[in-house]
Amino acid sequence: MNELKFIKYITKRFSAKKPVIKGIGDDCAVLEYTKTKYMLFTTDMIIEGTHFSKNAPPYKIGWKSMAVNISDVAAMGGLPKYALVSCGIPKNKSVRFLRDMIKGIAKICKKFNIQVIGGDTNASGKVTVNVTLAGEVEKKCLITRSGARTGDLAFVTGALGEGRRKHMHFLPRLREARILAKNFKINSMIDLSDGLAMDLARLTEASKKGARIYKSLIPLSEKSEPIDRSIYSGEDFELLFTASKPESKKIIKRMGKKEDLPVTLIGEILDKRFGVKLVEDDGKARQLKPKGFAHL
Amino acid sequence: MNELKFIKYITKRFSAKKPVIKGIGDDCAVLEYTKTKYMLFTTDMIIEGTHFSKNAPPYKIGWKSMAVNISDVAAMGGLPKYALVSCGIPKNKSVRFLRDMIKGIAKICKKFNIQVIGGDTNASGKVTVNVTLAGEVEKKCLITRSGARTGDLAFVTGALGEGRRKHMHFLPRLREARILAKNFKINSMIDLSDGLAMDLARLTEASKKGARIYKSLIPLSEKSEPIDRSIYSGEDFELLFTASKPESKKIIKRMGKKEDLPVTLIGEILDKRFGVKLVEDDGKARQLKPKGFAHL
Repeated sequence: MNELKFIKYITKRFSAKKPVIKGIGDDCAVLEYTKTKYMLFTTDMIIEGTHFSKNAPPYKIGWKSMAVNISDVAAMGGLPKYALVSCGIPKNKSVRFLRDMIKGIAKICKKFNIQVIGGDTNASGKVTVNVTLAGEVEKKCLITRSGARTGDLAFVTGALGEGRRKHMHFLPRLREARILAKNFKINSMIDLSDGLAMDLARLTEASKKGARIYKSLIPLSEKSEPIDRSIYSGEDFELLFTASKPESKKIIKRMGKKEDLPVTLIGEILDKRFGVKLVEDDGKARQLKPKGFAHL
Repeated sequence: MNELKFIKYITKRFSAKKPVIKGIGDDCAVLEYTKTKYMLFTTDMIIEGTHFSKNAPPYKIGWKSMAVNISDVAAMGGLPKYALVSCGIPKNKSVRFLRDMIKGIAKICKKFNIQVIGGDTNASGKVTVNVTLAGEVEKKCLITRSGARTGDLAFVTGALGEGRRKHMHFLPRLREARILAKNFKINSMIDLSDGLAMDLARLTEASKKGARIYKSLIPLSEKSEPIDRSIYSGEDFELLFTASKPESKKIIKRMGKKEDLPVTLIGEILDKRFGVKLVEDDGKARQLKPKGFAHL
């Protein structure tokens, strides 16, 4: 069972009932909260050997465990508020290892104004950290991955291709997500955790749409891997979002005026029947397969 | 660093600020919610080799991952509502394994009316399941581990000593906890996850009290381990609670009338200077050391 199939199976098994607005299947679960706000919930586990190497510094393990979850809250247009941290730590690890990991967690939590309210520590074979974040979002700011419309333009924040180098200490795009959510009508958004190809597939699948992405438009960072690999490489943790053409104009205008919103137009949303295509440099459109960083 | 010390360190590091009523250090975190209710959060990770054996049936792994968290919500007098489930699964496990684990989760969630709203699946070396539960409690029903008063009587639900045999498929004492929380003034409560000795130490430490427990009063289940081992054995998942003498009388009266509240008086709460003592069958009181099932 691949991950997309598994998510479908489990989404069906655990369908959302009121007051749950969205259950499994988006970057966060969405619940009724106050008159003007929803509550958001997300959880992510990172494991030695799968998400970081045996020699990864504990400070960065702590940082990353929180950052990947903040990225999920950002992708919904929301603000993270409270964190619960569980960890499995091998018995041979030093007290210093644990303290450094906690320092990494404390540092990023301070930066993003998150309170750690609970936790659990256990003995394990490999270092394992699970973070659950609870956050909130103004109802009018909520962005899901299922809202893309035909004719929308598609953007990414920042530049891709350096996930492999930066994934342990990246800065989640919370600030940019909030600017987008508060100032523009963003129809859909997702964070690029598993590569553009995979996460675009998730967004178009959830929105029941197709897409055309232009290879030449994809912004690559200076030390990026080659473009063909970048598209399928995970852990960029940039945001992929779509907006109508008039709204896109406003976004581009704002981008030109202030330098606080590094976004790049990379393509457009089409009807589902057109599939998801990548337009190569020779002008030919080829199917973009949903392969990438597979967790399962 | 032992677990009690570690919790102290981390509690200090992440101190609770409004609207967080209680952060790290109790069975659940407590947050302001509505005029009459608090929100509760708890998280627990279970790991192959630490909390269950290599050959544990996946259905029971799923069940237990949820049950240990429900027990934490019960200990606060609350009701669990929403769950987020992360798992690490070795690549060689079958689809059937995963489905059976999910069945175990779905079964206990149905029984306790819990919605699974999010999750995360990853490849890992050992089976690892982390559950975060969000719940709620009427403000007047909230019970913490820090509210024990001198003169309180101490009770446990059910019978102890069968944790080793039953821990994979136990029924959390949610019903009993709710009866206690709604009908009586319970001063303090904790769930017995790591043994009576360890969890009594946590309760008295948090309440800044001492205690005297009578060995002959401790209820043992039919297939229990010997009493001396039972006191230090984890995973009974019964509740330990205290109430004033007048309130205790009411509890005992109710217990006699209906059979839905199996609780046993085992001792009393004293000033801190008396320490935590176990009165042996010969009438001598000896110090009860906080040793038990250590997770770290």
